[in-house]
Amino acid sequence: MKNNDTICALATAQGGALSVVRISGSDAIGIAASVFTPRAGKPLGERRSHTVVFGDIFDVQGHTLDEVLLTIMRAPHSYTGEDTVEISCHASPYITRELMINLIEHGARQAEPGEFTMRAFLAGKMDLSRAEAVADLIASGSRASHRLALNQLKGAFSRRLSSLRDRLLHLTTLMELELDFSEEDVTFADRSHLLTLCREIETEISRLTDSFAVGNAVKTGVPVAIVGETNTGKSTLLNALLNEERAIVSDISGTTRDTVEGVVNICGTAFRFIDTAGVRRTTDIVEQIGIERTLEQLQKSNIALWVIDPMMNRESLETTAQRLLPLCRNKKMAVLINKCDVVDAITITAAMNEAQALIAKFGSGVEWSKSDMWAISAKLGTNMDKLHDFLQTAAALPEVSDDAVVVTNVRHYEALRAALGDIRRVQQAMHDGLPCDLVSEDLRLCINHLSEIVGEVSSELVLQNIFKNFCIGK
Amino acid sequence: MKNNDTICALATAQGGALSVVRISGSDAIGIAASVFTPRAGKPLGERRSHTVVFGDIFDVQGHTLDEVLLTIMRAPHSYTGEDTVEISCHASPYITRELMINLIEHGARQAEPGEFTMRAFLAGKMDLSRAEAVADLIASGSRASHRLALNQLKGAFSRRLSSLRDRLLHLTTLMELELDFSEEDVTFADRSHLLTLCREIETEISRLTDSFAVGNAVKTGVPVAIVGETNTGKSTLLNALLNEERAIVSDISGTTRDTVEGVVNICGTAFRFIDTAGVRRTTDIVEQIGIERTLEQLQKSNIALWVIDPMMNRESLETTAQRLLPLCRNKKMAVLINKCDVVDAITITAAMNEAQALIAKFGSGVEWSKSDMWAISAKLGTNMDKLHDFLQTAAALPEVSDDAVVVTNVRHYEALRAALGDIRRVQQAMHDGLPCDLVSEDLRLCINHLSEIVGEVSSELVLQNIFKNFCIGK
Repeated sequence: MKNNDTICALATAQGGALSVVRISGSDAIGIAASVFTPRAGKPLGERRSHTVVFGDIFDVQGHTLDEVLLTIMRAPHSYTGEDTVEISCHASPYITRELMINLIEHGARQAEPGEFTMRAFLAGKMDLSRAEAVADLIASGSRASHRLALNQLKGAFSRRLSSLRDRLLHLTTLMELELDFSEEDVTFADRSHLLTLCREIETEISRLTDSFAVGNAVKTGVPVAIVGETNTGKSTLLNALLNEERAIVSDISGTTRDTVEGVVNICGTAFRFIDTAGVRRTTDIVEQIGIERTLEQLQKSNIALWVIDPMMNRESLETTAQRLLPLCRNKKMAVLINKCDVVDAITITAAMNEAQALIAKFGSGVEWSKSDMWAISAKLGTNMDKLHDFLQTAAALPEVSDDAVVVTNVRHYEALRAALGDIRRVQQAMHDGLPCDLVSEDLRLCINHLSEIVGEVSSELVLQNIFKNFCIGK
Repeated sequence: MKNNDTICALATAQGGALSVVRISGSDAIGIAASVFTPRAGKPLGERRSHTVVFGDIFDVQGHTLDEVLLTIMRAPHSYTGEDTVEISCHASPYITRELMINLIEHGARQAEPGEFTMRAFLAGKMDLSRAEAVADLIASGSRASHRLALNQLKGAFSRRLSSLRDRLLHLTTLMELELDFSEEDVTFADRSHLLTLCREIETEISRLTDSFAVGNAVKTGVPVAIVGETNTGKSTLLNALLNEERAIVSDISGTTRDTVEGVVNICGTAFRFIDTAGVRRTTDIVEQIGIERTLEQLQKSNIALWVIDPMMNRESLETTAQRLLPLCRNKKMAVLINKCDVVDAITITAAMNEAQALIAKFGSGVEWSKSDMWAISAKLGTNMDKLHDFLQTAAALPEVSDDAVVVTNVRHYEALRAALGDIRRVQQAMHDGLPCDLVSEDLRLCINHLSEIVGEVSSELVLQNIFKNFCIGK
C-alpha cells in the first residue's frame, strides 16, 4: 500500500437515507474541488478546516449528480492525519458509484480495506493496538465487548505496555551498566534488586495473558457446548436459543454431523452455543468424525449443557455418560431433561434419577449440583428463563470497568506469551548466574515482543494481515 | 406528526465503517450537548453553524460510547430549516443504539419515516413535488431515473407548474373582471383571446400528462411481456435476463401460474420483464386465471417477446397465436425460437415459417418485421445480445436532458389529469357561452389541482401517505 496518493471510499453501508464518501491524501481537497461546486461563498481550497459547505457534485460528463454537504478537515487535524474530505450525499447506489468514478477519474484511488486507519497509524495518530481496536469497536455487539474495544482505542492497553517497556528498558540499562564494567569485576546492579524488578514485570505480563481468557470470551462469546445422545433435541434447543432456523432440525437420528454455532447476547453477555453431533456407538465413519469433533468442542467450552431425552434407552444413556462426563471435569454443567411437553412426570423423575446416578459414577470433578438439572421443552421454550439464569451465573464474567485492560486480540496474546517466556528466561539466567550479555539479549527480545503489539516493530506483511480484515472506508 | 419537538434517527444503513445519527428541532443542539463533550474548545452551544467538532459521546449511564465528529447546522440554514446536528460515529449497532437511547432519554423522539423531509416541506424549504423527488432520488437505479428525480428535486417541474398557475390566475382575473361588470353588459375580456389562453394552458398540461408514459417507464422500467405457450422456456428466459433464480423454472407444463416480474438495467434503461403463464386451452380454473392475467399484462406492456418451442404441436401454436397476436396490436414484438441448443436448423426454419404465417393471419397491426425473429437458447444464453439490441431500439425512450420536465409520480399524474378535465370544461363552457361565474369555478378547480402537486393545498392524510414511503432518517 502506497501512502503518497489520495484514496477514496464509500464509508457507509448501501441503503439508508445518507451515504458518506471519504477522501484522504495530499490532493484530497483538490480532487474534491474538481467534482464539487459550492452553492455560495469561497472556493473549496480557501475554506477553513472543520467546516461544512453545501453544494453540487457532478459526474464524469459534468452532469449534476446530487446536492450534498461536504466537510473539510485539513492535515494534521483529521483521522488519517492527511487532508480529508467527507461528502454526505443521498443514499443512492447510482450517485455514490458515479461520484466514486469521477473521483478516480480526477486522480484518487479506491481505498483498500482499513487503509484510512492504516494511514492514521503510519502518520503516528494511533499505535497499532489502538488501530486494531477500531475494527473491534465496529464489530462489538455487547456492552462488555464494546467497552473493551473502546478502552483499547482510548489507549489504556498501550499505556500499560508503554509502562512495562519503560521498566524493561530501565532493567536493561542496569544490566548493561554492569556489562560495561564487568572486566573490572565491579557489580553495579544489585542482583536481588534486578530479580525483584523481573518478577514484578513477569507478574504484570502474566496478568495480561491471563486476561485473554475473559477477553476472548467477551469478544467471541462464552463457549457453551450442547451435548447428548442423538435425537434428544439439541438442535431444537439451539434454535430456541437463537430464535431462528440456523441449525438443521430433523427426526432422523444423527442429523447434525458437523458442529453448528450461534452467538446469542443474553443480558449483555455474549454466549457462543455449539450444537454438537449426538454421541452414540456407530459404524458410520462420517458420524464418528462428527462425534470426535463433539468431544473436541466440549473440551474447548467453559460450560456444557447435557440434553437428555427421558424416553431414551437406559443402556445407551450410560454409554453417552461414560464418554461425555469425564470430559466435563472442571466445567460447569446443566442437565436438561427435554421434551417435558410430551413426557409424563414419572418418566421425567426416573430420567433425573438415572442422570444423577450416572454423574455420581462418571462425573468426578464436574461442577454440578442437583439444582442444575430441570425439565425443559426446547420445542415450546418451557423453562428457558431458568437456563438463562444458569448461564449468567456459570459464565461469571467480571464486570468490565471503564478503564479495564483486558487482552482480546489473538495477535496481542501471542506476543505477550512470547514476552512472558522471555522474561522467565531472563529470571532463570540470572538465577543461574549467567553472564549479563546473555541475559540482556532475552530482555531485548522481551521489549521487542511488547513493541510488536503497538507496532513500533512491524513488517509490511504484519500490517497487511491486520488491515485486510477491516471494512473498506475505515 | 408534531412539528415542535426534536427528532432523531439513524440516517445511514447498518454496516459499513461510519454511521450518521441525525437530530433536528429547536432543542437539537441542547440535546446533543447532553450526550457529547468536545475534546477541546468552546461548548457546543457557542459553536458556529456549519462547523465540525471532535469529541466523545456517552451512554445513559455516562460511560463513553465513542469518539465522533459532530456537525452543527443552525436554523434556517439546514435541510429541515431547523437547528440540526449530525453525529458521525463508528458503524457499530451497539454504539448507534445506545446513542439513540441517550438522545431519547434527553428529550428527542425517534423520527418517523420521511419526517426530516416533511419538516423541510413544512418549513418552506422545498415544495411537495421536490420533497417527493428526494425519495425518488434515493431509489433511482439508472441514469435516466436519477436525472428525472434530480430535475424534479432542483425544481424544474415546480417552476413549470408555477408558471401554469400564474397564467391561470391571470385568466381568472380577466374572467372575474368581466363578472363584476356583467350587469352593466360590458365585456372587458375578449372571449377569443381568453379561449386562446385556455388552449395554450390545455396544451401545456396535456404535454405534462403525456410525459407520464415515458416518466413511468423510466422510473419503474419499460414493461416487457414474455408470452407464449406453456413449457417453451419463458421462465428460463426471464432468469437468463435476471441472471438469478427468481422465477420458478420447471419441466411441468403450466408451472408459472401467476406473473413474475424482474427489473433489469440494460445499457442505462430499466426494463421490467413480466413472465406470464403459458397460454393454452385448459380446464384448470387456477390456470385459466393465470392466462387471463397474462392477457392483461400483455395489454399493459409496450413490448412483447413471443417465445416459441420449435418442437411444439402446430395446432396448439395456432391456438396461442390466435389469442395472443390480436392483443399485440400497436406493440413492438420479437419472436424468439427457443431451444436452439437442442433443435436442428431445419426444425427451427420450419417454426419460423409457421410463426410468420400465423403473424400474417392474426397479427394485423403488430409492429413486427422479419428481422425481429431469431433463434435463441434461453438455457445457454445464446443470442441474448441480439435481444438486448432489440429492446434498446424498441423501448425508444428519449434521452432525458438536464432540464427535462417529465412526470414520474402517479399522484402528480392524477392531479394533472384532473386539471386537464377542468381546463377542458372551461373551454367547453366558454364555447357554449355559459356565464363567467360558472366558468371561473372550473378555473379555480384547475388551479387547486395544480396546487395539490406542490403541496400548497394538502391535507394531513395526503402528507402522511407521501412520507410514510420514505426511509427513516430522511
